[in-house]
Amino acid sequence: MRFDRVWLNARLATLADGGLGLVEDGAVAAKDGRIAFAGQAGDLPSGWDTAERIDCEGRWITPGLIDCHTHLIHGGDRAHEFELRLKGASYEEIARAGGGIVSTVKATREASENELVASALPRLDHLIREGCTTVEIKSGYGLDLETEARSLRAARRLGEERPISVITTFLGAHALPPEANGDKDAYIEKVCSEMLPALAREGLADAVDAFCEGIAFSAEQTARVFAAAKSHGLGVKLHADQLSNLHGAKLAADHGALSADHLEYTDEEGAAAMAKAGTVAVLLPGAFYTLRETQLPPIAAFRKHGTPMALATDCNPGTSPLTSLLLTMNMSATLFRLTVEECLAGVTREAARALGRLDEIGTLEPGKSCDLAIWNIERPAELVYRIGFNPLHSRVWRGQ
Amino acid sequence: MRFDRVWLNARLATLADGGLGLVEDGAVAAKDGRIAFAGQAGDLPSGWDTAERIDCEGRWITPGLIDCHTHLIHGGDRAHEFELRLKGASYEEIARAGGGIVSTVKATREASENELVASALPRLDHLIREGCTTVEIKSGYGLDLETEARSLRAARRLGEERPISVITTFLGAHALPPEANGDKDAYIEKVCSEMLPALAREGLADAVDAFCEGIAFSAEQTARVFAAAKSHGLGVKLHADQLSNLHGAKLAADHGALSADHLEYTDEEGAAAMAKAGTVAVLLPGAFYTLRETQLPPIAAFRKHGTPMALATDCNPGTSPLTSLLLTMNMSATLFRLTVEECLAGVTREAARALGRLDEIGTLEPGKSCDLAIWNIERPAELVYRIGFNPLHSRVWRGQ
Ligand SMILES: [Zn+2]
Ligand SMILES: [Zn+2]
Repeated sequence: MRFDRVWLNARLATLADGGLGLVEDGAVAAKDGRIAFAGQAGDLPSGWDTAERIDCEGRWITPGLIDCHTHLIHGGDRAHEFELRLKGASYEEIARAGGGIVSTVKATREASENELVASALPRLDHLIREGCTTVEIKSGYGLDLETEARSLRAARRLGEERPISVITTFLGAHALPPEANGDKDAYIEKVCSEMLPALAREGLADAVDAFCEGIAFSAEQTARVFAAAKSHGLGVKLHADQLSNLHGAKLAADHGALSADHLEYTDEEGAAAMAKAGTVAVLLPGAFYTLRETQLPPIAAFRKHGTPMALATDCNPGTSPLTSLLLTMNMSATLFRLTVEECLAGVTREAARALGRLDEIGTLEPGKSCDLAIWNIERPAELVYRIGFNPLHSRVWRGQ
Repeated sequence: MRFDRVWLNARLATLADGGLGLVEDGAVAAKDGRIAFAGQAGDLPSGWDTAERIDCEGRWITPGLIDCHTHLIHGGDRAHEFELRLKGASYEEIARAGGGIVSTVKATREASENELVASALPRLDHLIREGCTTVEIKSGYGLDLETEARSLRAARRLGEERPISVITTFLGAHALPPEANGDKDAYIEKVCSEMLPALAREGLADAVDAFCEGIAFSAEQTARVFAAAKSHGLGVKLHADQLSNLHGAKLAADHGALSADHLEYTDEEGAAAMAKAGTVAVLLPGAFYTLRETQLPPIAAFRKHGTPMALATDCNPGTSPLTSLLLTMNMSATLFRLTVEECLAGVTREAARALGRLDEIGTLEPGKSCDLAIWNIERPAELVYRIGFNPLHSRVWRGQ
């Protein structure tokens, strides 16, 4: 057997078989961009050979990290609003100063595709510098067909500009645009019968998301979006139960959603339904932290029922301007008391599951894309323990 | 006037004169490693000339960041203890597994000077990558003369290995070493009459710190350490009121301390005494966050009385494995509700004040060391707003 590249003298956390999958004296071999071998070096096929051989000098290899929930593409930022709020400005004053999601919608509508790409690249580069090899990117700051399409095209472009896999999600049902004059039903109708079909036709969306909340859309409106998505063969996911319990977790599970995200107010029934449906709980500690939320997601119920848990940055300009999966892990441990194993699985295997791509990425197993993160650490716990530190040694995407 | 280097086409936050000191169309000039000019480009002296000219293309320049409270030098880490605690291990189980501060003391005593330097360099490099140009480093994991001296020598060495100013602090009164058999008074006697004089003789300590807390040393014992420090002409500072109100803030003020640090349990009397004495309140949000503390430091009282506030990482292996001043600012805004201006001043001007070096560093003013951080941002608030992101463009230390 002749490989393209072999990494030797490594320690592995394969994340295969449900645990951390620790391997001492490990090796990973790549062939045609895929993992051809991952395990103990002594188990490499006899007579193996390789074009390139890399000595890892005892470093740890994990699957490349996966950020399964971001709003990386958007116009402008909300730093000034952040500054005003710390000075004690009221919501009304901030709205008058042009703040809130409306300001991001305005800035996104005004930005060209090139501008959207250029402003997102530094954020993407920060994720990449920490070993991220797959990122999900949502639209949802356009709220009209043209801008939603431009946002998703910009997201796809990021995957051409950098060595990273981009998975796109259409989040038309994120907020009501100003021109809808408060008519949520009419806007949802537009999302379902105009926007979604056009975007699906162009192949711009890999999945469809919605925000089910008092300040956004109802369970009924969400269900309509999900039905439309399914009619186009697209998977669904949901921003659910972040600020109140509208039973979004249950709704997502009932529709066989890939994931339900946030979930601070989810009850045990929702957690159980998600486990049964295989819907992943995507926890977003960056938003929890930024909003100084005190209501914790129902971790004990997720553990009890076996609901898979993933973690993501939720990178967005309003409630989580976070671009670090390492810090996301530390926040999940510190704020949510997730274990080291849950944290590492949350940004690899379970994040892949949340994207419906577990057959392709998320673990070190033969046949999957050879996406690796190689770390200057002595044990995997260090990736979760340190705060604001990046021990990445190198990163491999599709075998390179 | 001929300068060595001039940075042009910049926006400045000089932090001079008590505010952010914003300057549009700004310039900074260096001569012999010092700031020769900082202000509006139009105010440069007529007929100026320079050996090197740098176009900042509209970027922002701030003073180089200052981390005024770290325990950067230590043996080992506590990642495994962190992992066990998340698995629900009790303090007894962790102690049996070799955890706690005792484990760091053991690892530090076993480490050579070269090993202490090598293990600290990645942490220091992370601070440097975010524009840090001065770092304070405490001893306090040796707890015997030989290891405390070795730790301080290692700290000084860091300042030779990297382009950064290192300020050292002797923290012998950090914890009681195991061999002291519980006799705190005898250990403090040793700190004052053996360790401190020897370290002062060798010029290894720029200041002296102590930990005044139920689990550490009493106010009386602290006062003895302060008296000894003064007899050697060294400034003092104090880990105060972190876990309970032992009136450490007042004690520090009464001794004219440079700073009192942590201060979650400080009362208004302490805040007022500090303001009067000019003792800086050094807030350490990394420890607050890691310990999931809910008692906030008395920010309102500090503001009311005009107590200067600085911020620092408290980088240490147990309660704050944090190596990011940018994240420290974000945590101070998010968790303590400090304003953007307070955050930026806290890691520049006020941190310099906490180190007794305001005449040398901390603002962009003629005569000070030319320590600059140059940022890819549109407004200073971005430095506080983003989480786990580093917009540093370049960094200048002593004019280079
Ligand atoms: Zn989101
Ligand atoms: Zn400390």
